[in-house]
Amino acid sequence: MLKQPAVKYRPFPPIDLADRRWPGRTISQAPVWLSTDLRDGNQALFEPMSPAAKLKLFKTLVAIGFKEIEVAFPSASQTDFDFVRQLIEGGHIPDDVTISVLTQAREHLVERTFDSLAGAKRAIVHVYNAVAPAFRKIVFGADREGTKALAVEAAMLLKREALKRPGTEWMFEYSPEVFSATELDFAKEVVDAVTGIWQASAEHPVIINLPATIEGATANIYADQIEWMDRNLARRDGIVLSVHPHNDRGSAVAATELALMAGADRVEGCLFGNGERTGNVDLVTVALNLYTQGVDPKLDFSDISAVARTVEELTQLPVHPRHPYVGDLVFTAFSGSHQDAIRKGFAVQDPDGFWEVPYLPIDPRDLGRSYESVIRVNSQSGKGGIAWMLETHYGISLPRRMQVEFAAEVQKRLDASGSELDAAHLWKIFCETYLETSAPAYVAHQLFEAGEQQGIRLTVRRDGVETTREGRGNGPLEAAVQALGLPVRVASFEERSVSPGSDARAAAFVEIAVDGVPGTVFGAGLHGSVTTAAILALVSAVARAGAGNPAFFSETRSATA
Amino acid sequence: MLKQPAVKYRPFPPIDLADRRWPGRTISQAPVWLSTDLRDGNQALFEPMSPAAKLKLFKTLVAIGFKEIEVAFPSASQTDFDFVRQLIEGGHIPDDVTISVLTQAREHLVERTFDSLAGAKRAIVHVYNAVAPAFRKIVFGADREGTKALAVEAAMLLKREALKRPGTEWMFEYSPEVFSATELDFAKEVVDAVTGIWQASAEHPVIINLPATIEGATANIYADQIEWMDRNLARRDGIVLSVHPHNDRGSAVAATELALMAGADRVEGCLFGNGERTGNVDLVTVALNLYTQGVDPKLDFSDISAVARTVEELTQLPVHPRHPYVGDLVFTAFSGSHQDAIRKGFAVQDPDGFWEVPYLPIDPRDLGRSYESVIRVNSQSGKGGIAWMLETHYGISLPRRMQVEFAAEVQKRLDASGSELDAAHLWKIFCETYLETSAPAYVAHQLFEAGEQQGIRLTVRRDGVETTREGRGNGPLEAAVQALGLPVRVASFEERSVSPGSDARAAAFVEIAVDGVPGTVFGAGLHGSVTTAAILALVSAVARAGAGNPAFFSETRSATA
Repeated sequence: MLKQPAVKYRPFPPIDLADRRWPGRTISQAPVWLSTDLRDGNQALFEPMSPAAKLKLFKTLVAIGFKEIEVAFPSASQTDFDFVRQLIEGGHIPDDVTISVLTQAREHLVERTFDSLAGAKRAIVHVYNAVAPAFRKIVFGADREGTKALAVEAAMLLKREALKRPGTEWMFEYSPEVFSATELDFAKEVVDAVTGIWQASAEHPVIINLPATIEGATANIYADQIEWMDRNLARRDGIVLSVHPHNDRGSAVAATELALMAGADRVEGCLFGNGERTGNVDLVTVALNLYTQGVDPKLDFSDISAVARTVEELTQLPVHPRHPYVGDLVFTAFSGSHQDAIRKGFAVQDPDGFWEVPYLPIDPRDLGRSYESVIRVNSQSGKGGIAWMLETHYGISLPRRMQVEFAAEVQKRLDASGSELDAAHLWKIFCETYLETSAPAYVAHQLFEAGEQQGIRLTVRRDGVETTREGRGNGPLEAAVQALGLPVRVASFEERSVSPGSDARAAAFVEIAVDGVPGTVFGAGLHGSVTTAAILALVSAVARAGAGNPAFFSETRSATA
Repeated sequence: MLKQPAVKYRPFPPIDLADRRWPGRTISQAPVWLSTDLRDGNQALFEPMSPAAKLKLFKTLVAIGFKEIEVAFPSASQTDFDFVRQLIEGGHIPDDVTISVLTQAREHLVERTFDSLAGAKRAIVHVYNAVAPAFRKIVFGADREGTKALAVEAAMLLKREALKRPGTEWMFEYSPEVFSATELDFAKEVVDAVTGIWQASAEHPVIINLPATIEGATANIYADQIEWMDRNLARRDGIVLSVHPHNDRGSAVAATELALMAGADRVEGCLFGNGERTGNVDLVTVALNLYTQGVDPKLDFSDISAVARTVEELTQLPVHPRHPYVGDLVFTAFSGSHQDAIRKGFAVQDPDGFWEVPYLPIDPRDLGRSYESVIRVNSQSGKGGIAWMLETHYGISLPRRMQVEFAAEVQKRLDASGSELDAAHLWKIFCETYLETSAPAYVAHQLFEAGEQQGIRLTVRRDGVETTREGRGNGPLEAAVQALGLPVRVASFEERSVSPGSDARAAAFVEIAVDGVPGTVFGAGLHGSVTTAAILALVSAVARAGAGNPAFFSETRSATA
């Protein structure tokens, strides 16, 4: 049994703010966003990202529209220092993007931090010290005065180092750690001292970041704390008031939203809620929550699946199937009554009017996704589902998103026949759908060396005509995409050995996205060679993507002509 | 780019409740919990659970302490009907547990629902109809009067059918669907009509459930809606006011907590947030959030990992590594400063005092878990981590939780040597830790048939003495656990082929839990036979679990003596 909590845990004390105003407010504009995926997110990964992976994620963040990106903790490791240099020297920072770096409040670390930023056009230097009572008592053995003195010293250090380096446009940021567990009067006292030294003003604002480093209370308490600071801080018009919520109680999204109602101007977080322990607040959800309320989030998730696959690859962490907006299952309706209501909603939808489809708080097409209704082969009979039958009888284990796609294909046949399906019938549908595609159809391929790349000579047949083209890439699949010469990219790839007893050795599944078309399309290939299976799967996907879209191959035609 | 949201999506209108009271309140006692894992959760699975799986989950829910469990939608399918019969006829429902079933508001469906409950000592019949404007307009084409008439008719039907069946203690529940998107005055009008027919009173209360079937606004709006209903509903003292939040905006936990502050008495949800689309509210997080505030949740998650593994097995959905309280990474500290603060926090902790350890909002031991600090072999060098080096150089791919455990073992050696490790050194530590365990050590085994079970004759050596004992189970691993005769159970098992080039063919990893001991222990085995590898891994885990615990083997000793 759980131990009696009343003798071990204390309730969070309420905030004395009887005239709070935030519960009556709404959010009418996007906050300033700061992505800390490359700092707070990266430090919490089992395998931190390589410099190449960090650069790839930086470019993804820029493409999404982040204007402030925390990129490293340069005084903490040479790797982080070097990454900042790489960004600056490589010219990777667009003019409208400001990078931020974190530092502890010690002289040599602050100096090294500024050194890392040499040559930057503009940068945020973010300094913090621990001010919460548990840290004062347990970790540092410091009193209030000593703690405040450290913050003041840090503020002076930043000012001094910035004055030495006039070539960069400096922005200062200060975080009292752990703000959410700190006495409000003391947090104000320390922050006021810091903004006094920085002479914060409307013309030269500074960022004051108030972290819930550990989420320790219900979301309304954090909102009360932010409103109290918003109303009581000195030099408020010289402050960009920032929040940095973590998700220990599973309510970081709500805490962020209520804090924005309470007066915060800026939000620090990560894509899909990566970050220490339970993660930083998920900026994707907060942004898209604004979107569904008619507020422009100023971040672009119009191809959200591509962002998700990139982040999964780089962080080696999965996006949960039920994650709002992006999870594999969140635009999938299983229940007949839900499917019926959604179908009716789509039918009456006025394309120029407001969105109002039951069970779908957002139009999946706005995110580059599509709605899927899924039937079950044997209603609620459990072990009789499509995926299970294919796996049991034919040793084929479909990727989850492909299960959704294939279920829709099966449903089309069910609507026609009206009866339940047995395994052999399912297998026939699978073969017709994925393995017997013919426009184009795979004929042959040869691999060849092409410097550091892989070359391929790929022959396909379409409309009775065989065409052979060459392509190059990091691997055979990438090379084959180039050889096909079509506006597609591989969104995911899986290959597995088929269970014993089958003739084929490997089953490959390729998911492709077509430029300008929402959603993705799967293809499958079975072959004794793992490479051939993969290329068969790619050609299968391409043929399926082009099937309902005669214009799809026009680019190839003109290229070949 | 995302489309301009202002022309497609509307902001949720604010609630007129200027004197709202919930923001100043705290939650001081646990609500009534209803688990709908077997209904709302099950209907949203790609593969719905088999009857055997549903029964296993029902028993898990009972063991956790749920007193109200929604078990089926019996009028919707024969499978669901039969499951209710199985629960009742099999005597699976404890005296202090009430099952609930859902039904639509139609006469023949209500009758069939009551039929499914014949012989139940006590039951909740839960009826709903759609009252929200989008459903009235799009789905049913009904006006307010017609919609209310349907609810009234449903209430009368339930009353009539219950009167026919006096042998069961009936409880009624009504849900106006989708409450959160319905005009408050109309929701009140319909609910008042229903409670009038049911003659709700303090002596004979009824459940009024107010679902956020689709989460469509910030959490404070739902709280306003609940407080408005709490203050305006007729016969309030005859109502158990229930909430049923979904997680479309990622804030179901907060919405639930604020709704409890606003006057709700009861919460419907699922373990780990299973359920339609983005899921129902996660009852585990809400319960443990109460726990960390000194409030007894009346639900037992003192072995939370066992619950998580059971739910993952039955739903085939993963618990995310960053899920509050239960995710693999949430009690893991990667950063040196975090590790330092936590170490100091543990050192000053008064075992009889209040919990106050930096970065840990709950004592992991209360959940049967343990805190792990993880170092990195090459700091932030990316592809140089422990798991990656073992996989690249030795073809061994460790399960994620085992990576955490092994990293702690490596850290012990690092503290001693102070230098970085190469792959050969890591492999040596791996062999010493997992493969060369010796107390007990595996000697030999033989498998034999034992009716429908698998039998094993297992010989191990400990303290120089060889012992052979027999065991039986569903498979060789379960049989071997029985043969060992120790208070352990297998928490997880993985086995994979080792990359080409190695002599061993299969690497098996067994995670065991020891009765009464927090956390789990891993073992590993390498062998050409997949069965032998698995048994080697089990014996390795057992030896490691017993290493620091001399009393561990006493039970065997007495059993053998």
